[in-house]
Amino acid sequence: MKVKVEVINVDLSDHRIAYVSKDVAKELDLAAGGRVKIIASEGKVTTAFVAVDSSLSGAVIAVPSSFHTILGSPEELELKPYIIPSSVNYIRRKLEGEKLTKDEIYEIIRDVVDGVLTDVEIAAFVSAQMSVGMDIDEMVNLTRAMVDTGNKLQFEEPVYDIHSIGGVPGNSKVSIVAVPTIASAGILIPKTSSRAITSPAGTADTMEVFAPVNFTVEEVKELLKRIKGFIIWGGTLGLAPADDILIRVEYVLRVDPLSQMIASILSKKLSMGVQNLLIDIPVGREAKVDNIEEGRKLASIFTQVGQGLGINMTCAITYGGQPIG
Amino acid sequence: MKVKVEVINVDLSDHRIAYVSKDVAKELDLAAGGRVKIIASEGKVTTAFVAVDSSLSGAVIAVPSSFHTILGSPEELELKPYIIPSSVNYIRRKLEGEKLTKDEIYEIIRDVVDGVLTDVEIAAFVSAQMSVGMDIDEMVNLTRAMVDTGNKLQFEEPVYDIHSIGGVPGNSKVSIVAVPTIASAGILIPKTSSRAITSPAGTADTMEVFAPVNFTVEEVKELLKRIKGFIIWGGTLGLAPADDILIRVEYVLRVDPLSQMIASILSKKLSMGVQNLLIDIPVGREAKVDNIEEGRKLASIFTQVGQGLGINMTCAITYGGQPIG
Repeated sequence: MKVKVEVINVDLSDHRIAYVSKDVAKELDLAAGGRVKIIASEGKVTTAFVAVDSSLSGAVIAVPSSFHTILGSPEELELKPYIIPSSVNYIRRKLEGEKLTKDEIYEIIRDVVDGVLTDVEIAAFVSAQMSVGMDIDEMVNLTRAMVDTGNKLQFEEPVYDIHSIGGVPGNSKVSIVAVPTIASAGILIPKTSSRAITSPAGTADTMEVFAPVNFTVEEVKELLKRIKGFIIWGGTLGLAPADDILIRVEYVLRVDPLSQMIASILSKKLSMGVQNLLIDIPVGREAKVDNIEEGRKLASIFTQVGQGLGINMTCAITYGGQPIG
Repeated sequence: MKVKVEVINVDLSDHRIAYVSKDVAKELDLAAGGRVKIIASEGKVTTAFVAVDSSLSGAVIAVPSSFHTILGSPEELELKPYIIPSSVNYIRRKLEGEKLTKDEIYEIIRDVVDGVLTDVEIAAFVSAQMSVGMDIDEMVNLTRAMVDTGNKLQFEEPVYDIHSIGGVPGNSKVSIVAVPTIASAGILIPKTSSRAITSPAGTADTMEVFAPVNFTVEEVKELLKRIKGFIIWGGTLGLAPADDILIRVEYVLRVDPLSQMIASILSKKLSMGVQNLLIDIPVGREAKVDNIEEGRKLASIFTQVGQGLGINMTCAITYGGQPIG
C-alpha cells in the first residue's frame, strides 16, 4: 500500500524504524517489533522494524529524520508485507558449514548495503565467518561484492598503496612518513585511512593534525591531478559501504574474522583503483599476530586473495614487539 | 545520571529504545544508534538503543509504552554509559570453538532474560551453537540456566509428561488423546503446549477449540488439586523466559540448533517439575529427522542430557512418514 511519510525529529543513526498507524498495521497484518518491506523511489527496497503508533491514523508512516535521509527523503512510500530474503537462507547454509557461491555472496552483500538484512542476520553472517571460515574463492567473491556495491575510482596511471594490519601502538606514523616518501619518487599513492576504532587515534585522526582529511570523490580526483599522494579519511567516499556496516556489527560482538578482515582491507584498496599493494604484518607478543608461523600463514592467504583479485601484492612480516616511533 | 521518564504511546514489542534529550546525550557521551545502560527500580539492569530526540530537553528520556511496561513502569530511572558485558566475550569464545563453563552459560542466559544482550549478540550465540555445537555438559548447564531464570512449579506427587519434537502434520492430536488417557490412570500430567510457530495450529490452538488454555500460575496449582492432567498454553506462566527470546531470534534466522532445541524442550519440562518424560522422535522423509540412525543419535543425546538433569527419560522413535490422524 502507498503511504504518506511524516518525519520525526529523532536521530537513530542507521537504525531503521517505521512508526505505522493502527490502520496500516491492520491492512498489512504487521505486528509491533516485526518487520515491513519498504519500497522507496526508484524501486529501492529496504526493510524496517515496525512500531505501532497510536497517535497516527490513516495511510501514514512516520520515520526518524536519520532514516528519512537514508530513504532519500521521500514524501510517499510503498509498504509491503516482509518476506524473508533468500540471503538469509545462504547465511544459514554457511552456518551449517557449506561453501557459498559467487551469486550467493553478492546477494548477501547487496542486501547488507540496501538494509534488507538487519544487524541480527549480519551478526549471523559474521559469526559464520568466525566459526566456519571462508576459502580463498569465497574471500575473493566477498571482496568483489563489497567493491561492486559501492563507488569506484579509476586513475590513468598505476596506483600503489601500503597498508598495515596494525595492532601495534604508534603504527599509523609509518604511513605518515612513507606516503610522502613514495609520492616524492613520482609514484601515485592515494591512501585512504580510517579514524580510531579501538585505539585513541586512527591514521586519519593523526594526519588531521597536519592537514584536512575530509574530501569528496570530485575533490580527490582534482587533488591527484596536482599531487602524487595523500592521506585522507575514506569515510565519506562511499567506497565498499558494506564494510562500514559489517564493521559496526563486528564491533558490537568484538570479533574480527580473518575472511572479513582481508575483504575489508582489499575492498577499500580495489575501490581506490589500487593495483600494487604492500601489506605490513607486524608480528609480536602484543600484536594481532603473535608468532612468525601465523604471520607466514596470513601472508600466504592475503597473497592468494590478492592474486584472485588481480592485485600485484607483497606482504612484509615486520617486528611488532614494541610501540613504533 | 537520574532522569525523568516520559511515555510515548508506541508499541515496539520487546524492542528497547530510549529517546534521550541532547542534554542527556551530551552529559553521558551517548551516540545515536549506540547503547545506554538503564538501571530501573530494585537495581534491575538492562540496555537500550539510543535515539537522540530534539524535541526533548533536560534530564529526560522518553520510552515506548511497550518498553515502559518491561521496565516496570517507573517514573524515574538511572542512566549510565554502556559497558560491554562479559557475556559477549563468552559468546565470542564459543564462536572460536571453545567450551563454556556453567558460570559463563548462566551469565549469558541471565543477560538474555534481563535484556542486557540484544538480538545481535543473541544471534551470535545461536549461530555459535549452530556452527560449533555444544557437548552434553553445556546442554545440561544451558537447560538449568534457562530454568533458574524463570518461574518454577513444584507438585507433591511425581510429575509425568510426554513431548514430541514434531515436524509431522497432525502431530498435536497425539497429546490431545494421550494426556487424558494417562491422567485417567491416576498419573499427574500437567502439559504445557505452544501456539503455532510454523504450522497453522499449535497444540494449544487445537486444544482451545475444546476448552480454555490460558491460566495463571495460581490457577494451574488450583486446577491440579482437582484434576490429574491438562493441556494448557505455557506462554503466560513465565517458565524459562529465555526460551521465548531465543526462539524469536532463531525464527528470524530460520535456524534451530540441536543444543538449543533440546534445552528449549527440557527447560519447559523441568520448570513444570517434570521428573518422568517420554520424548517422541518421529522419523520420516518429510519429518525433522529423516533416517533411523539420526533418530537413534538424537535419542542418545536427549537421554544423556535428561540424565544430567535428573529427569527419568525414555525416547520413542516413531513412524513419521505420513500425517497423523
